[in-house]
Amino acid sequence: MSIALIIPDRDLTQLEQRLQASLTDTKVEIWPNISQKDQVEFALVWKPPLGSLSSLTNLKAIQCFGAGVDAILLDPALPDVPIARIVDDKLNQTMVNYLQGVVAHYKLRLDQFSQQQQQGIWKPKSPRKLASICILGLGELGSAAAKHFVDLGYQVSGWSRTAKKLADVTCYSGEAELSQAVANADVVICLLPLTDKTENLLNAAVFAQFKTNSIFINVARGAIVDDKALIDALDSGKLQAACLDVFRQEPLANTDPFWQHPAILITPHISAVTNLNSAIEQTLLNYQRYKQGLPMLNVIDRKQGY
Amino acid sequence: MSIALIIPDRDLTQLEQRLQASLTDTKVEIWPNISQKDQVEFALVWKPPLGSLSSLTNLKAIQCFGAGVDAILLDPALPDVPIARIVDDKLNQTMVNYLQGVVAHYKLRLDQFSQQQQQGIWKPKSPRKLASICILGLGELGSAAAKHFVDLGYQVSGWSRTAKKLADVTCYSGEAELSQAVANADVVICLLPLTDKTENLLNAAVFAQFKTNSIFINVARGAIVDDKALIDALDSGKLQAACLDVFRQEPLANTDPFWQHPAILITPHISAVTNLNSAIEQTLLNYQRYKQGLPMLNVIDRKQGY
Repeated sequence: MSIALIIPDRDLTQLEQRLQASLTDTKVEIWPNISQKDQVEFALVWKPPLGSLSSLTNLKAIQCFGAGVDAILLDPALPDVPIARIVDDKLNQTMVNYLQGVVAHYKLRLDQFSQQQQQGIWKPKSPRKLASICILGLGELGSAAAKHFVDLGYQVSGWSRTAKKLADVTCYSGEAELSQAVANADVVICLLPLTDKTENLLNAAVFAQFKTNSIFINVARGAIVDDKALIDALDSGKLQAACLDVFRQEPLANTDPFWQHPAILITPHISAVTNLNSAIEQTLLNYQRYKQGLPMLNVIDRKQGY
Repeated sequence: MSIALIIPDRDLTQLEQRLQASLTDTKVEIWPNISQKDQVEFALVWKPPLGSLSSLTNLKAIQCFGAGVDAILLDPALPDVPIARIVDDKLNQTMVNYLQGVVAHYKLRLDQFSQQQQQGIWKPKSPRKLASICILGLGELGSAAAKHFVDLGYQVSGWSRTAKKLADVTCYSGEAELSQAVANADVVICLLPLTDKTENLLNAAVFAQFKTNSIFINVARGAIVDDKALIDALDSGKLQAACLDVFRQEPLANTDPFWQHPAILITPHISAVTNLNSAIEQTLLNYQRYKQGLPMLNVIDRKQGY
């Protein structure tokens, strides 16, 4: 029996060594150099190439190397086996720190003061009054973010596909309530999973419902946003700024208009980097559970897409 | 009897109206249009022109319109009357919010990502490891900042002229211990009062004691820092970044090299703006106390300079 690591474009030396050191009876192999494909029962994957998983004829379980499984579900030939994802308190904390820092950045107007500095302009302004925050997506990360901003004293609302209840959060759900959710928020944060239902969900019609002068932060997936509609919303003054950590194509193409837009802050997908220790721990635990015939932890619902 | 407002370059309409509305038996006048100078017993001032206070021959008390009295003490002809300053929890909170936002900005590397964005560079990096913070100056604002960063889990040290004790803060004092105080901090925050003892205190010799790659934040007064020494410390790589909210000359001169320095973030003296409500409340209270023959609250020690 062997485990396949299907994680392209990354140095896997440390990951392979640490997994192999804990697994004396299992061979850990790195895609595409798998010696015996029919020996692979368990795969640890991140953005696996189309067809890579279906080529493993005896595959029984998939462990995603991060929180979002959308890239796995893209494969039309995906084997019908359970898929687990990483759920990690440290990941929640990293994300919450990112969001708090970005909100503080806008609250203090560091975006405007940086621009003024470049132009040699001295113009004091009081902090932006950002009192209300709407979180789109109330899963692991979204709930953690909502709780954090409640604790900081913000008025917090949230929106999710199915109805949720969170303490001190005004919860909206379903497509019909999306416009209500975004309409009164000074800051809207996207933490939705990417599914066929959320792709391009944030389009011109939805941005038109945002509060005028609001700020948009996307830390989920680029494809949830209609890029052109976002730029139009910024150019028309409907939104005053956007901080984007995720993009349809990553790295962001050289020619992408986002780079030069004065109201957009780009961070290179750093808001929630999978912690290697947590990923190894959860992978080993799920692999043991699989071998013992137990269901893996944090298995996703393939029909919902998360 | 009358009160003089000596606060140049500011629209005082609201301040005058609100003070006058509360003071039926006292005339509120705005410098330099004082109808009878010998009627003025109480002055509310901010950066008063040299000689303005000494021209008020019956002046009995001075209320500073902010937390720092250094600009008042510059006047060699300053009348020998008590000087009170504003001490305000809201001011502390504004300052703490500023510092937390700036530290988060550096922690998330938003400075580097903004520069990368301008150059079209996609280069993910983990957050900066900023674990220790040193606060120079442990007065009202410094103590509030120290407590805040302790609560956030930072290792906090502090330095002050006279020895202080603060819970969970390693306190240093006196000139001899200044180098120890700054030597192990990832972030050094200046919250000292400007006095003849602190002018140019942060010079080349002191910056040489800073931890290599540390970050410096000045929210006190520009003249505490030797500007040239700061730029040299940034250029040599001793410091990796500086955020400056205060300057020797404000507004900062067009020709100042700070504007264009890539490792300096300039904010236009916004870290602690006096709250109008608090200032009016404390001014009225101190004026009442003065009329009743009671000592004013928050009177400064003129010899110490704060």
